[in-house]
Amino acid sequence: MNILFIMYDQLRWDYLSCAGHPHLHTPNFDRVAQMGVRFTNAYAQSTICGASRMSFYTGRYVHSHGAAWNGFPLRVGEQTMGDHLRAAGMACWLIGKTHMTADADGMARLGLSPDTKIGARQAECGFDVWHRDDGLWAQGPDGFYDERRSPYNEYLKSKGYDGENPWHDYANAADTDGDIASGWIFANADKAANIAEEDSETPWLTSETLRFMDQAKGPWCAHVSYIKPHWPYIVPAPYHNMFGANQVPAAARHAKEQEDAQPVFAAYMQNRIAQAFQRDEVRQKVIPAYMGLIKQCDDQLGRILDDLEEKGRLESTMIVLTSDHGDYLGDHWLGEKDLFHDQSVKIPMIVYDPRAQADPTRGTTCDALVESIDLAATFTSFAGATVPAHILEGRDLAPWLHGQTPHWREYAISEFDYSATPQGAKLALAPRDCRLFMVFDGRYKLMHAEGGLRPMLFDLHEDPDEFDDLAKTSADHPALEKLYGHLHEWSRRMSQRVTVSDADILNKRGKSLRRGVLPFLVDGTEVPAELFEKYSGKTRQKHAKD
Amino acid sequence: MNILFIMYDQLRWDYLSCAGHPHLHTPNFDRVAQMGVRFTNAYAQSTICGASRMSFYTGRYVHSHGAAWNGFPLRVGEQTMGDHLRAAGMACWLIGKTHMTADADGMARLGLSPDTKIGARQAECGFDVWHRDDGLWAQGPDGFYDERRSPYNEYLKSKGYDGENPWHDYANAADTDGDIASGWIFANADKAANIAEEDSETPWLTSETLRFMDQAKGPWCAHVSYIKPHWPYIVPAPYHNMFGANQVPAAARHAKEQEDAQPVFAAYMQNRIAQAFQRDEVRQKVIPAYMGLIKQCDDQLGRILDDLEEKGRLESTMIVLTSDHGDYLGDHWLGEKDLFHDQSVKIPMIVYDPRAQADPTRGTTCDALVESIDLAATFTSFAGATVPAHILEGRDLAPWLHGQTPHWREYAISEFDYSATPQGAKLALAPRDCRLFMVFDGRYKLMHAEGGLRPMLFDLHEDPDEFDDLAKTSADHPALEKLYGHLHEWSRRMSQRVTVSDADILNKRGKSLRRGVLPFLVDGTEVPAELFEKYSGKTRQKHAKD
Repeated sequence: MNILFIMYDQLRWDYLSCAGHPHLHTPNFDRVAQMGVRFTNAYAQSTICGASRMSFYTGRYVHSHGAAWNGFPLRVGEQTMGDHLRAAGMACWLIGKTHMTADADGMARLGLSPDTKIGARQAECGFDVWHRDDGLWAQGPDGFYDERRSPYNEYLKSKGYDGENPWHDYANAADTDGDIASGWIFANADKAANIAEEDSETPWLTSETLRFMDQAKGPWCAHVSYIKPHWPYIVPAPYHNMFGANQVPAAARHAKEQEDAQPVFAAYMQNRIAQAFQRDEVRQKVIPAYMGLIKQCDDQLGRILDDLEEKGRLESTMIVLTSDHGDYLGDHWLGEKDLFHDQSVKIPMIVYDPRAQADPTRGTTCDALVESIDLAATFTSFAGATVPAHILEGRDLAPWLHGQTPHWREYAISEFDYSATPQGAKLALAPRDCRLFMVFDGRYKLMHAEGGLRPMLFDLHEDPDEFDDLAKTSADHPALEKLYGHLHEWSRRMSQRVTVSDADILNKRGKSLRRGVLPFLVDGTEVPAELFEKYSGKTRQKHAKD
Repeated sequence: MNILFIMYDQLRWDYLSCAGHPHLHTPNFDRVAQMGVRFTNAYAQSTICGASRMSFYTGRYVHSHGAAWNGFPLRVGEQTMGDHLRAAGMACWLIGKTHMTADADGMARLGLSPDTKIGARQAECGFDVWHRDDGLWAQGPDGFYDERRSPYNEYLKSKGYDGENPWHDYANAADTDGDIASGWIFANADKAANIAEEDSETPWLTSETLRFMDQAKGPWCAHVSYIKPHWPYIVPAPYHNMFGANQVPAAARHAKEQEDAQPVFAAYMQNRIAQAFQRDEVRQKVIPAYMGLIKQCDDQLGRILDDLEEKGRLESTMIVLTSDHGDYLGDHWLGEKDLFHDQSVKIPMIVYDPRAQADPTRGTTCDALVESIDLAATFTSFAGATVPAHILEGRDLAPWLHGQTPHWREYAISEFDYSATPQGAKLALAPRDCRLFMVFDGRYKLMHAEGGLRPMLFDLHEDPDEFDDLAKTSADHPALEKLYGHLHEWSRRMSQRVTVSDADILNKRGKSLRRGVLPFLVDGTEVPAELFEKYSGKTRQKHAKD
């Protein structure tokens, strides 16, 4: 059995036809949904790439693994799905993006070199690397944002695209009368990227995936991790003009959101990307490009599915389609993905389980509160191992996939650390106070803010658009107490006892007695003679001390 | 500058004359208190040896390091005071007990062998080892409790004490008519241990300490970690009959504690050691032995102080005297140390700081809420380094030592995980529900119990003996809400972002702009041309693609 764990970066849960998008037809996503289960309440553990992915890969909350922002290194020794899968006899490969930063100081402290197999896995988030390409080859006066080698730029250069950074100059820019029209500029989003479609990022990574699958010996898990539809919002022909402004939904936003807004929300509404997405002409140029990027992802998914089908591998391959977070695209007056409205924190989660036990659920949806950390547990179980519940905080989805109704979590948690952002600076908060927590119980959604700022609260039954922040007017709303209760239960959870399992503990009970730890003997008659014989003077002669 | 970090195992805070003990005169402890500051509200992070010590050594709460019970391995890569001190140029040595279990699985996963310097430090809690001797050479039908080599048993054998386990047969047993009278049996506590006083554990470790200091090149920190006055409660002459039953205070216990007791408290009151200590004849035999053990510790401390003075090292040596937790000794109907009454969780904490800035506070006491995790920060600062506040959760005590009044914590936290105990079994709780948290704000003390059990609450102003559990009768006592607020603030704390400091974060703000991450450009005019020039088509010629 193998696992194809496919992630699209910044793919909104609702930009798929199986999730009800009115204009974007994604037949290949829908095909996997028909083969499996689409989880309609799946939440990312953070709305920032790096933190969210570290939760996917470790199966643990951000509060547990600590890598709360892009570029915050994942501490050395933190276990990942690679560790758990390899322990179960399954290889674990990376093809694409992780946004993981290695803990170079920690590795140096432990004498681990990235040149060794162990060190390389530590440096690559537990994966063996087919291709590591984080897909953000931005470049400015201080150099490249990402200083690694870029397999994709190397590919482009091998195909004759010139310059230092063809990722930008061709894959993410248009050509206008001989000039480079950068995809960073929203005004260029309706232009075709100046690249042959088959050389653009999504097809390239897909070809690499097919190449990987052709040579891989199972069992394997492959994390196929696309940069798209993440910005820069620009796509090659024919996708660049496949959708038009008339297919762009009105922004889901309301004037009352701006009135007396919670301070972090207010700060984000004023940042540059929000200001840009508040302009209709930006949305009308960018969203069709975003849709085109997704359409391209769908077509490329078709190549993978066809390949699996052709080679008879569908019966032995679990397929997961998901994203690290969404994209506001102007909803709630915001761009990017920062806070916890569904546009940002809810993710697509489609799971095809090839096992016969999953037959009853094929083509169904499941409304259970699912978290991104559940995948590591699901994969570990699929690989045949017991889920190490003292390490993995997520839960095996197999019962849902097999039509059972397990006792399940009552709430989902997400976190956001904005300490490294201009909003943190603007609010003049200490870094550790720049932290937000979401608690969602299926109806109410709480955003707790550290630093003494007030919370936000939404009732998604009465207000599915999340326009009415109940905490603004009802500081004593009864749902606040309930959700804070959940938050505190969660925050007190045992997350770091990772070296001892529950089974180990139950096995430990009473063992010290049989190793002579007896600090309760009044006269020795309290325990069986067997435990005591070494100490009973009556049964032994005094040792001679000479 | 050097540090002598001296720990006595299971030494109650109030069994010292400087802390007001009416019968036990400890002139050498008192001498250090006169030279420095005695902290009167110092709390251990756990009341079990291993967990408490891992907090001392890591400077982090149990909830953060996860090694919540004796034998729960400290996860590989968790940083300790050894790491912080060595980074500051100070060696860090162990002479005695740590009760640390290495994370053998984690070390194997990272390819770390205990044969290497790095691996040895991982296996020994960050210390370089002069002697590792946990001092508990208990032995039963399943073998030794501790399977390491015992330097102390080796010493005894070299001195002619015979048998497999002279630690038990001589150092911790009396001789009665040629038979071994085990120190495990309380009925033997008034007998003299069958060993020359200078060969008993406390003098042996003291001699090793003097030997260490004579050869050590500074700067160094030495963790001198005595097993005594920990059980077995037996001591050689002349200490065995230095105190008598008339010097044993009445047990601090009240019948009302047993009425409708909180279930964990009730379970502990019924365990074997509690049942034993509820008998006056046990207390009257054991407590004089416990006092004798402390008196011996005091005399041996005198040897160290005299040596430092003689050799002119007092001016360059910080001295800390503390313990990992207390001992109920029958108070509150309990033995051992498990719950959070002061007898168990409060610890002696006497700090002599040789720096001139500490002159104004010599011989004073300080009532601030101090935690055991504060020492790692204090030592790091004393060694000349900035305290890494993103890793160390404790705080530098230097301001108190120097007569300042810093802004300080409002509450102290302690934790207790009884999942591996018979009480956990008796209450039929899942391991993760067998967890207790203490919050003490200087007046009120809350014990929160996981698993749906009710809390306990004491008002130490009105009820310094902690007999009246207010939570028993006032489920809505206002202090409950306040202390739960503290607990939740604490439990949400950021404890795992150990790879990035606050300074790193502040330094990160805005850096990605200068590396070309510009996902907010409507038309490119939003940023200075400098940030943008690589992408501005107007400033560049199109690359030739052939």
